[in-house]
Amino acid sequence: MSLTYKAVGVDITRAEDALARVRERIARTKRPEVIGEIGQFGGLFASPGRDTVLVATADGVGTKLELARLLDRHEVVGADLVHHCVNDALAMGAEPLFFLDYFATSRIDPAVFARVVGAMADACARCGVALLGGETAELPGMYAPDAYDLAGFLVGAVARDRVLGPEHVREGDALVGIPSSGLHTNGFSLAREILARAAALRGEPLLAVLTEPRPELDGLPLGEALVASHRPYLREFRALRDAARIRSIAHLTGGGWEGNLPRALPAGAGAQVERSSWRVPPLFTLLGELGDVAEEECFDTWNMGIGLIAVVANEDLGRALGAVSGSVALGRVLPHATGRRVRFV
Amino acid sequence: MSLTYKAVGVDITRAEDALARVRERIARTKRPEVIGEIGQFGGLFASPGRDTVLVATADGVGTKLELARLLDRHEVVGADLVHHCVNDALAMGAEPLFFLDYFATSRIDPAVFARVVGAMADACARCGVALLGGETAELPGMYAPDAYDLAGFLVGAVARDRVLGPEHVREGDALVGIPSSGLHTNGFSLAREILARAAALRGEPLLAVLTEPRPELDGLPLGEALVASHRPYLREFRALRDAARIRSIAHLTGGGWEGNLPRALPAGAGAQVERSSWRVPPLFTLLGELGDVAEEECFDTWNMGIGLIAVVANEDLGRALGAVSGSVALGRVLPHATGRRVRFV
Repeated sequence: MSLTYKAVGVDITRAEDALARVRERIARTKRPEVIGEIGQFGGLFASPGRDTVLVATADGVGTKLELARLLDRHEVVGADLVHHCVNDALAMGAEPLFFLDYFATSRIDPAVFARVVGAMADACARCGVALLGGETAELPGMYAPDAYDLAGFLVGAVARDRVLGPEHVREGDALVGIPSSGLHTNGFSLAREILARAAALRGEPLLAVLTEPRPELDGLPLGEALVASHRPYLREFRALRDAARIRSIAHLTGGGWEGNLPRALPAGAGAQVERSSWRVPPLFTLLGELGDVAEEECFDTWNMGIGLIAVVANEDLGRALGAVSGSVALGRVLPHATGRRVRFV
Repeated sequence: MSLTYKAVGVDITRAEDALARVRERIARTKRPEVIGEIGQFGGLFASPGRDTVLVATADGVGTKLELARLLDRHEVVGADLVHHCVNDALAMGAEPLFFLDYFATSRIDPAVFARVVGAMADACARCGVALLGGETAELPGMYAPDAYDLAGFLVGAVARDRVLGPEHVREGDALVGIPSSGLHTNGFSLAREILARAAALRGEPLLAVLTEPRPELDGLPLGEALVASHRPYLREFRALRDAARIRSIAHLTGGGWEGNLPRALPAGAGAQVERSSWRVPPLFTLLGELGDVAEEECFDTWNMGIGLIAVVANEDLGRALGAVSGSVALGRVLPHATGRRVRFV
């Protein structure tokens, strides 16, 4: 009964084979600042100058992973991970520079790995981000069968005098909302439970509920609407930056509106948001109705159709709205004393 | 049956409470380059100058997590994660700057979280690394009950003309080995399987095999020997750098000797290593015997007592050995044609 590492479920060549399938797509993310090749103990990237600030973010994609797996849409979560990180970095005013990933599972399926990490590489290439390295871990027994988890790490840079943040926000500043492309990567455990209960109630498998065309969604099945990509806001951020004085940005992820918009506001300030300024997409309404979820809970969990909110100087509101198609004037920054800091009117 | 996010197993306040327990220890890792506070969309760190190169690493700690959990030694894996990243960065010649973590589990146990992330923060403080941010994810159903996974990301910096790497290595260079403190964070799935089989053979629970004092280990139980910390080599790296011309460094992690030492060697070069230059610690011998693991497989999986190997100019060998207590002259860099690149003599 001589043992090998492979026999107990860890096959280093399996990880290497999986990586070999995406090496070319990773190579295409190379930027001029990247030094050397993949496979070193650390990825090398020429430092920007002392007049800049590095912005570092770490993110995951939550249990959207489970839905992507169920619907065989592994590419979505790979791209989402990159976009989530890119959006968090630009919320501080930063242009993204490089990205690293962590892929962990009980047993690597090289085909799935290649689809996920290949999609990450493609997303990096589209956003101009170097995929500088990563870690692939085989952890027998720690993950549910076929489950895998992803973590992403991104470093960006912003000129020292252009870092965004709550300290720049003033009373009367305007809130510009940019639409989301769906749930993005948050609130999936709630959405999945809603669908699981709906399936149980109808005595049907979950997949049937996910794939059935929905009139509320113009015939799109719920599953398709749910696995829509977490959109990156890089292009919109750049246009906004060129057109208006951005004070701060909130990326609406875990915790929804109340969990994120206040992070872009100084102490003592709140947001007054006009509910009539945008239409909550039917996906959110449908989920809320199916699960009988209270409206406040919906806004505390999901982005409800707005993925990014920029706080801009009120005088620049028109230029900001003109710069980003689909953007809406959500409301204003007002003084805040007690209670919830996002007030819907 | 009105649903809430909390009811389906994701409690954002639980993650916040858990984080609040370690906020002070995280604050102690602050460096002068850190700008602003924790809780922004991205962590801010003043960029080093253009004469430096950023070094980025991503790492996990593997299924040592399972052993730490079984033995209630959660602090070990938190510190290990930081040390693993620090060692990978210094293998490129870099001083560590900042670290971010990813903590994922099906349901956060705030006490366990605080022990793991608190230990990370303390390890960061000891290594002079800023804990700049992180992501805490609750993924109901994706992890085995009570299991959690960790990923770490670290960015360091090195002067552009002091980046280490295989391209600096010449035939005849000397190999300096620095002892490990045990398995570090690699080969645990094999070790665990060996112990599980030993337990089954004796009809005893795994915990009995782990906690029984071992004469081969001077009375230390196997469990204690296995959860020994992955030691950081920062102090030794600095001493070595001051005393000798380091060409490249290999951190012996996943893949053992053959998987890592060649990463520090140029194409066409191999390593000749004298087996008599160090004594393989009894932990490795004991595991190999218990599992009837072939010696080559042991060296391809575990570090076998040497955790870091520096390639130094041969003329500097004496100074290098003098600079790091416990270090040994392992052998030489020689030409290599075919087959395995690490040759033991």
